[in-house]
Amino acid sequence: MAETKNPQFEQAVRDSFAAQRLMATLGARLARVAAGEVEIRVPFRPGLTQQHGFLHAGVLSSALDSACGYAAFTLMPEGAGVLTVEFKINLLAPARGEELIARARVVRAGRTITVCQGEAVMLSGGSETETSVATMLATVMTVREHPDVVG
Amino acid sequence: MAETKNPQFEQAVRDSFAAQRLMATLGARLARVAAGEVEIRVPFRPGLTQQHGFLHAGVLSSALDSACGYAAFTLMPEGAGVLTVEFKINLLAPARGEELIARARVVRAGRTITVCQGEAVMLSGGSETETSVATMLATVMTVREHPDVVG
Amino acid sequence: MAETKNPQFEQAVRDSFAAQRLMATLGARLARVAAGEVEIRVPFRPGLTQQHGFLHAGVLSSALDSACGYAAFTLMPEGAGVLTVEFKINLLAPARGEELIARARVVRAGRTITVCQGEAVMLSGGSETETSVATMLATVMTVREHPDVVG
Amino acid sequence: MAETKNPQFEQAVRDSFAAQRLMATLGARLARVAAGEVEIRVPFRPGLTQQHGFLHAGVLSSALDSACGYAAFTLMPEGAGVLTVEFKINLLAPARGEELIARARVVRAGRTITVCQGEAVMLSGGSETETSVATMLATVMTVREHPDVVG
Repeated sequence: MAETKNPQFEQAVRDSFAAQRLMATLGARLARVAAGEVEIRVPFRPGLTQQHGFLHAGVLSSALDSACGYAAFTLMPEGAGVLTVEFKINLLAPARGEELIARARVVRAGRTITVCQGEAVMLSGGSETETSVATMLATVMTVREHPDVVG
Repeated sequence: MAETKNPQFEQAVRDSFAAQRLMATLGARLARVAAGEVEIRVPFRPGLTQQHGFLHAGVLSSALDSACGYAAFTLMPEGAGVLTVEFKINLLAPARGEELIARARVVRAGRTITVCQGEAVMLSGGSETETSVATMLATVMTVREHPDVVG
Repeated sequence: MAETKNPQFEQAVRDSFAAQRLMATLGARLARVAAGEVEIRVPFRPGLTQQHGFLHAGVLSSALDSACGYAAFTLMPEGAGVLTVEFKINLLAPARGEELIARARVVRAGRTITVCQGEAVMLSGGSETETSVATMLATVMTVREHPDVVG
Repeated sequence: MAETKNPQFEQAVRDSFAAQRLMATLGARLARVAAGEVEIRVPFRPGLTQQHGFLHAGVLSSALDSACGYAAFTLMPEGAGVLTVEFKINLLAPARGEELIARARVVRAGRTITVCQGEAVMLSGGSETETSVATMLATVMTVREHPDVVG
């Protein structure tokens, strides 16, 4: 477990996630919050698909981006804001199945810049099979003042 | 205007976009289709926001990913399938305003791999101001057989 | 031309470039320095190639990374340090010809984070033909204290 | 260990690496070749540095790009060519020390597209300490015909 500076990190993540209204629109829920690690789950729904009926890459990106941002946030000081600077995602397989799991962990936490790695898997066959569908590398920023302003 | 091999490219893009049910869930519409260029627009809605009330990076990614994929698709032969291999996005400013415009254009179209560039801007002040909010670099693949299988 | 805070930006870039000993090893030279824009050139040499005799992607990355970093540096305050946070590069065509030109420009300059775009072209046919061989999107950081420490 | 289709993969990698003349210019050597995994080492030399005396990000990129490409190559059929489509690298810490180790492994091998993950560490203190300095996510392509032509 990584070292955190905020004893209230889980509540801080849960409060912020609840304020991300896109997460509710996608039907996403916060499944796990630990120091340096966050898991978000999105049950499959036809309203989230691309043209072949699989989950759209944008859904994977949304869940992985939030998971990466919150994994970084767990290690930030109380009162800091979190901001995604950029991310890259590789799609590995069609996102078909019953539920998407987006898992993120901190690779390196710096004073200003935190690098996170994310993996997305799909559960299928009554949750017995886990297929890797995407991998993300994200850069997240700690914002000490004006947490609502980029850069 | 880039050179296309499919005289029906606009209809092909419109049909595929209509089948991407995530686009309807986000309220996205296909605003422009030209050879090598596509524009998607998403009106601001509270259901698409992150914790500070701006559009979530996942919404920008969804619109830019579809725009990049379809920009590449306009230059592909009839009957080919389109697949996002990967993309990278940099967030440039908070996505606040009335409408998101995601514009993509083909940088290089190869037999198998097409590279696209995307820019996202927000319209605000009654559409008088355009603010750049994100830039994307995406790799898209032409799939000649089994268009529903990755790689 | 972008707005700079450092009237001595050209000298600052030239001094730092001269201290990047990899640039000399690759035979790279600083061809142009303007506010928000830098160009680096690398003449083709067999010692810089990959297995098919073209310039190695690592040479393109080295030249574009330095060009992006210095394009950002031109807009930073005097005394600040510059640090590459990350970059992504797409290779577009084999890098064959007489000289590589790596051009970078600032897309957005923030207080801490600057985003740059780079393009690499190869000159061939006695410098009459310019072929696009790579495109880069880079995130650069302004370091105000301890310029030799990451993050 | 991943499954390979080429029983001669190690020799194929060694032959190709020997033909990458940039590797000799950087003083890089192929330290390990296994199915789906490659390690390249570069001893520290002043001629490879950036302005603060650490290894230049371009050196890390060169070694990781070759390591990722060859990790993918080990799983390709005999006679196929390997091509880097794109990569992203995050710099994690100053690359100071005695030797750079660039390790790559295949994340997913497809018929056309292979995704690889790379990690760079620096050995210091008489090789007793290993510090993570960069992480890469790369997209590599299997080229069945015209292995010297991009895309």
